[in-house]
Amino acid sequence: MSKKVIEPYMHKVQYYETDQMAIVHHSNYIRWFEEARVDFLDKIGYGYKAMEEQGIISPVTGVSCEYKSMTRFGDTVRIAAKVLEFNGIRLRIGYQIYDAATNELRSQGESQHCFINPEGKIVSVKRANPEFYNCLKGYAENNENNETEKE
Amino acid sequence: MSKKVIEPYMHKVQYYETDQMAIVHHSNYIRWFEEARVDFLDKIGYGYKAMEEQGIISPVTGVSCEYKSMTRFGDTVRIAAKVLEFNGIRLRIGYQIYDAATNELRSQGESQHCFINPEGKIVSVKRANPEFYNCLKGYAENNENNETEKE
Amino acid sequence: MSKKVIEPYMHKVQYYETDQMAIVHHSNYIRWFEEARVDFLDKIGYGYKAMEEQGIISPVTGVSCEYKSMTRFGDTVRIAAKVLEFNGIRLRIGYQIYDAATNELRSQGESQHCFINPEGKIVSVKRANPEFYNCLKGYAENNENNETEKE
Amino acid sequence: MSKKVIEPYMHKVQYYETDQMAIVHHSNYIRWFEEARVDFLDKIGYGYKAMEEQGIISPVTGVSCEYKSMTRFGDTVRIAAKVLEFNGIRLRIGYQIYDAATNELRSQGESQHCFINPEGKIVSVKRANPEFYNCLKGYAENNENNETEKE
Repeated sequence: MSKKVIEPYMHKVQYYETDQMAIVHHSNYIRWFEEARVDFLDKIGYGYKAMEEQGIISPVTGVSCEYKSMTRFGDTVRIAAKVLEFNGIRLRIGYQIYDAATNELRSQGESQHCFINPEGKIVSVKRANPEFYNCLKGYAENNENNETEKE
Repeated sequence: MSKKVIEPYMHKVQYYETDQMAIVHHSNYIRWFEEARVDFLDKIGYGYKAMEEQGIISPVTGVSCEYKSMTRFGDTVRIAAKVLEFNGIRLRIGYQIYDAATNELRSQGESQHCFINPEGKIVSVKRANPEFYNCLKGYAENNENNETEKE
Repeated sequence: MSKKVIEPYMHKVQYYETDQMAIVHHSNYIRWFEEARVDFLDKIGYGYKAMEEQGIISPVTGVSCEYKSMTRFGDTVRIAAKVLEFNGIRLRIGYQIYDAATNELRSQGESQHCFINPEGKIVSVKRANPEFYNCLKGYAENNENNETEKE
Repeated sequence: MSKKVIEPYMHKVQYYETDQMAIVHHSNYIRWFEEARVDFLDKIGYGYKAMEEQGIISPVTGVSCEYKSMTRFGDTVRIAAKVLEFNGIRLRIGYQIYDAATNELRSQGESQHCFINPEGKIVSVKRANPEFYNCLKGYAENNENNETEKE
C-alpha cells in the first residue's frame, strides 16, 4: 500500500498548560492528541470541515495516555499520529509525543472513535463515504504490517 | 426596591487551575466570573436554560479583571456578582472574588454582554421579555444606589 | 476490613467545559477524575497538603477513560473514586461518573500514580508513611474483594 | 528610534477551544494574549527563560479584552502585541487579534504587569536590568508616538 508519509504535528508548550509541579498538566496531553488528530485528518484530506459537509461527526469514545517523562513550558513536542485500527465503524488512533529537541519519548496513547450523523445515529463509513473508508483503511493496514517494528 | 439578596457563589480551587508559579493561572478568573454569572442568573430565575427557551442568548462582548492577591490550590473563593448597569440592550455584571477563609480580596472585574436571538440578531430584552427586563433593571438600580458605598 | 464509606464527589458542569458539539469536551473528564481524586484523598485524611508536608508527591503516570453517554452544560455529575490497586509503589484509582439526576453512567476510567520525593526520586510509601500505606491498602483490599460485584 | 519590527504571532484555533455556541470561548483570548506576549518577549530577546535566569518574574496584575467578532474552530488568527506603556515598574502590553484570512478584527485588549523577584518583592527593572529596561522603553516610545494613528 503506497500511502504518503504524514508529517508529525508540532506543538509549542504554553505557560498556561503548566501546573504547580512546573510541568505540563497531564490533561493537556489529551488535548494535544486532538490537535495531532485534527492535523493528521486534514493532511490526509479528511479534515473536520470536509467530514462535516458530508454529515459525519466522529466523537471520542475512549482515550488513554501513558506519561513517560515530563514536558515543560517552552519545550516543543513532536506528535506522531497513526491509524491503529479501522473497520468502518470504529477507529483507533495512536499517538507518540517526543521532545522535538532531544527525541525523548514524553508520552504515548490512543483515542477511540465512532462515527455518527448529525442526528446522533451510528454511521458506517464504508457506505457513507467509500473513499474516506479506503483512505483510512490504507493507513490502518500500513500500521498493522509494521506494528511490531514500530512499537 | 425589594430585591432578594443573592448568595455569593463558592468555588474550590482545583489543581489543574494552577500554573508553574504555584498560583491560579490568571485566565481561570475569567472562567470563575462565568461560573458566578451563571449561578447568579439561575438564582434570580433567569438561568441559561430559561433564557434559551425564550430564544435569548447573551454573549460576552468584553471582560476585565484586576488581580489583587494570589489564589492557590485548595483555597475556596467566594464570588459576589452584581448587575452594574442594564439598559435592555447592554448588560454589565461586576464580580468580587474573596478568599472564603480570610476575606481577603483576590480579584475584581466585570463582564459586558449583549443579547441576541439564535439567528445572531440583537434583541431588546425590554420587548422580548419585559419580566426579565424588570428583574435585571431592579438589580441594576439596587447597585447604582449603593455603588459609592460598595466599591 | 472496616473502612468508612467515602461520599462520592459532585461536580456541576460549567459552560466553559462544553465544546461545539454542545457536550462536555472529553479532556475535561480527566480533570474531573483529578477533582474526585483530590476529594477522595482529602476525605480519607491524606489530602495533597498532608502528603506534601511529608514530602510525598504523587504524579500521574497514566490515565484512561471510556465515554459512555454525553454530559451537557448545567448537568450535575456524581463521581465515585476507589482504590483499584496499591502496592506501596504504584497506585491505581478508578472512577465512575454518573448523571446525578438520572444515575446514567456517563464515563468510567482510571488513573495510575507513583510516589516521588521533592527531588524526583521514587518513594516507597510503606517506608515513608506506614499509616498512609495501611490506609490506602485497606481501601484497595475492600475493592479487590468486591470487584466482581461492583463492576 | 530604530527598533526592529516584531512579526505578529499566529495561532490556529483548536477544537477544544470552542464552546457550545460553536465559537471560541471568551476565556481563551486571555490565553492567546499570553501566547503572543511570550512570543513577543522571546523575539525581542527577553523571553521567560532569560528573565528567570536574572531572577525576574512578571505576574499579570490586570487584563481586559473586547470581543469584536467571533472566532471559530479551524480559523487562524494573527495577534499583534505591543508595549503600550512602561516605566520600569509597571508594564502594559496591548493586543489586537485579526483573522489571518480576512484581516477582520476579532478582539483587542491589554494586560498589565509588575516585576518581582523569586521572593515576591517588587523589582525596579531599571536597576535590575538596564538593558531590558532600555529595550522595553524603546518599544514603548515607538508606540506612544504612533498611538493616535494606530488605534
